[in-house]
Amino acid sequence: MGYLEENEQDFLKYVKKMRAYQEAINLLFWDLRTGAPKKGVNQRAEVYSVLSSEVFKMSTSEEMAAYIANLSPHENSLPEITKRILQECKREYNQNKKIPHQLYKEYIVLQSKSENVWEQAREENNFKLFQPYLEKIVDYKKRFIEYWGYDEQKYDTLLDLYEPGMTVAKLDQVFAELRNALIPLVQKIKLSPQNINHDFLFQRFPIENQKAFSMEVLKRMGYDFEAGRLDETIHPFEISLNPGDVRITTRYDEYDWRLAVFGTIHEGGHAIYEQNISKELIATPLCNGTSMGIHESQSLFYENFIGRHYGFWTYHYPLLKNYSNGQFDSISLDQFYQAVNVSKPTLIRIEADELTYCLHIIIRYEIEKALIHDQLSVKELPRVWNEKYKEYLGIQPEDDRTGVLQDVHWAAGDFGYFPSYALGFLYAAQFYQQVQKDIPEFPFLLEKGNLQPIRKWLTTHIHQYGKLKKPLEILQEATGEGINPKYLIDYLTKKYGAVYSI
Amino acid sequence: MGYLEENEQDFLKYVKKMRAYQEAINLLFWDLRTGAPKKGVNQRAEVYSVLSSEVFKMSTSEEMAAYIANLSPHENSLPEITKRILQECKREYNQNKKIPHQLYKEYIVLQSKSENVWEQAREENNFKLFQPYLEKIVDYKKRFIEYWGYDEQKYDTLLDLYEPGMTVAKLDQVFAELRNALIPLVQKIKLSPQNINHDFLFQRFPIENQKAFSMEVLKRMGYDFEAGRLDETIHPFEISLNPGDVRITTRYDEYDWRLAVFGTIHEGGHAIYEQNISKELIATPLCNGTSMGIHESQSLFYENFIGRHYGFWTYHYPLLKNYSNGQFDSISLDQFYQAVNVSKPTLIRIEADELTYCLHIIIRYEIEKALIHDQLSVKELPRVWNEKYKEYLGIQPEDDRTGVLQDVHWAAGDFGYFPSYALGFLYAAQFYQQVQKDIPEFPFLLEKGNLQPIRKWLTTHIHQYGKLKKPLEILQEATGEGINPKYLIDYLTKKYGAVYSI
Repeated sequence: MGYLEENEQDFLKYVKKMRAYQEAINLLFWDLRTGAPKKGVNQRAEVYSVLSSEVFKMSTSEEMAAYIANLSPHENSLPEITKRILQECKREYNQNKKIPHQLYKEYIVLQSKSENVWEQAREENNFKLFQPYLEKIVDYKKRFIEYWGYDEQKYDTLLDLYEPGMTVAKLDQVFAELRNALIPLVQKIKLSPQNINHDFLFQRFPIENQKAFSMEVLKRMGYDFEAGRLDETIHPFEISLNPGDVRITTRYDEYDWRLAVFGTIHEGGHAIYEQNISKELIATPLCNGTSMGIHESQSLFYENFIGRHYGFWTYHYPLLKNYSNGQFDSISLDQFYQAVNVSKPTLIRIEADELTYCLHIIIRYEIEKALIHDQLSVKELPRVWNEKYKEYLGIQPEDDRTGVLQDVHWAAGDFGYFPSYALGFLYAAQFYQQVQKDIPEFPFLLEKGNLQPIRKWLTTHIHQYGKLKKPLEILQEATGEGINPKYLIDYLTKKYGAVYSI
Repeated sequence: MGYLEENEQDFLKYVKKMRAYQEAINLLFWDLRTGAPKKGVNQRAEVYSVLSSEVFKMSTSEEMAAYIANLSPHENSLPEITKRILQECKREYNQNKKIPHQLYKEYIVLQSKSENVWEQAREENNFKLFQPYLEKIVDYKKRFIEYWGYDEQKYDTLLDLYEPGMTVAKLDQVFAELRNALIPLVQKIKLSPQNINHDFLFQRFPIENQKAFSMEVLKRMGYDFEAGRLDETIHPFEISLNPGDVRITTRYDEYDWRLAVFGTIHEGGHAIYEQNISKELIATPLCNGTSMGIHESQSLFYENFIGRHYGFWTYHYPLLKNYSNGQFDSISLDQFYQAVNVSKPTLIRIEADELTYCLHIIIRYEIEKALIHDQLSVKELPRVWNEKYKEYLGIQPEDDRTGVLQDVHWAAGDFGYFPSYALGFLYAAQFYQQVQKDIPEFPFLLEKGNLQPIRKWLTTHIHQYGKLKKPLEILQEATGEGINPKYLIDYLTKKYGAVYSI
């Protein structure tokens, strides 16, 4: 074995070790959320922090620096996978190393305080309380950008953390087109005389039956229960320990079965992505979804393009009826389909339907970009927020609790994250368009409850690659074009036009 | 801060980190047994091994060697806890470091093969298949003893791994006294004309109800469900992540509720020990039970001295009846008490009752000691095993599957472990004697279902200390004397004399 090969082997061993730590950390997290006894939580936090800081140290160690220095000049003679691992490690190394350690430590303390104050501020409906913390967070973020550097615009650097390759220039154009189409569409539907009854949805549906139905749907989607499990938590999530162990959680409301059912379909979409990453990538940093946006495209593809599709319910409505307490006995499939596709502007993002969801995101994007680019100050936030809600959705929060204080993201310093949600929906619409081209029998498959060919298409074009390909490569290769809001706009216009007969 | 204090602080930080790793490892283990998806198991084994070898490295690192070298000369000026931590680390350091690394690695490979072969040999009822592996295991153990060193007898060194301070000299005497009392007692009971009916025990008892009853008993014992949880596994166990998170598992048999009920009481006894270790010891290597024997004394105290006590069932029998399907409707408390205290020699250790249990252990002790001391060769095992069963219990296995091949311990190299089970029972009898002296209302407390004062007594005298005190110190300070088999012999003679009217 030559020197380069030896170095490569050592490097792979090193990242394998880091990955093992990460799996342990993920298990600690999962356990904490699903059932760890509360009296052990303090000590558990200690354990979590010891292992996390160990992984951080490994990612920025002299050993890592040496691997990067030794292997980078030979990048092109390395096997493709090693090359991408190296790039990933380099990206992380730079991200962690460029910020002075002291500054980063201060930031971590601030971040944790800021989340606590945000919680209190939201409870007391008092933005002023939170304002000085948010000002500091924004300030740190801007300083970080100076250390990390940027090409065209400062906010690009934050975008790149969550959606590698995405830029403000691109996003401004895409979101503007989307916004300009959605605002009048939402407005039209609001004025539609169509009155959809959906009261029948909210009757008692036994939790055990919700669970049984959700599990049937998950299995049919292709979620592999031998490589995962379903538990219950207040805030549902998906977490991947390795492709053979991808866990999801959900929440049950006895009087609103939609929460659990659409929630498990959503988390199931995330999980199916992780379960189908190529085994070659196990124990490497490439063994996760390639970006927040592509990840969200998979959950939204299943939740909206499959789970709210007429054909899906053609097959599943009779099953749902069987599990229910009779609440659907006099309800036709058409009535049911309309009811689960009701659209109405809401103040709260996480309660938004598919038609209005992207407008919530665009509002946040415009605001956080302006903050980072010094075109807006933190104290102006509540006013600007309310104006934008009025302008885009035609409704206005009565207080900051249901307005600017509703999300934890800014308090946690997660600037650049929000766009992923809308990007995921845009990508999903493009995949939806393409899968129908590649599998013309798509609607019939749904009607027959046969979702396997669809899952296979997603695995072939998306899942298997993990982080081996960048998000925009995935999109380009799967659909033959770059990001294009036309597909989502068409989908929403057609679908809601039909639902509301406009 | 002086140099010594600084060094002490660094040392404590170092052991805290090791302990954090251990907690993560324990969670990985627990998860694997309770519900990890099977397709993730291979990668999980990898993670487990990475973290375990990291802890091993830390325990034998140059950094550890330096702490030991720097702090040991000042041992007596260190705070008591630090001093004991240092001793514990030194013990572990020597244990791990004295064996040449290569030899130890060979042994680990052999051990894993040996367990596999043992499983096959047991299945095929073929001792010959296992014999060469066991010969090698014994050989390695003897070589290890040479490296570790020994004072009087070689087997002492193995005993010390599980029961610090225990010796062959002591154990020979204690076990001889116990054996000489038990053999005739078992014989007498076998000949007793008393025929105890216990068929009514084995009716269908719904698993949900077994669980509910077990949980009620656990709560009453003082097991804190805010610092633990109960899950289901094939082989029940207790595992401590930290005193605020001590988990137990159990197994349910619909037609034998005793498995789950006495099983949870047993594991609950282990868990209550760990839950009540002083908070001062958290994040140190002292934060576990002090030895296998003392640990077993706590599980057996609860299982036998409480859980099979007449007074316990005075209170709990009506509860059990409520949870049952009516199987006890015509059964009096006296009949019930007798039925759960039936004694009959069995071939299988883990099915043995309290009267015969120690004889199973003594047989194993005598055999493994003879193996280590070159007074017996591996190929003679089946014959010697069968002869001893005939002599001590009056029964003889028909094959090695129900004889010498029944336990995994020797295949796994766990020589020196078996005595802990009997020691635990002996200690428990001594604690039982003492607690009745210190709390004269002991039987009335059981009758009232008030187990709290008993739990408190155990915490005061045993639990709180963790590894801060050695097993024999604990025993001496709690009962005012050293190990003495008289108490267990008296207890068994009286109890079984009464049950069998002899």
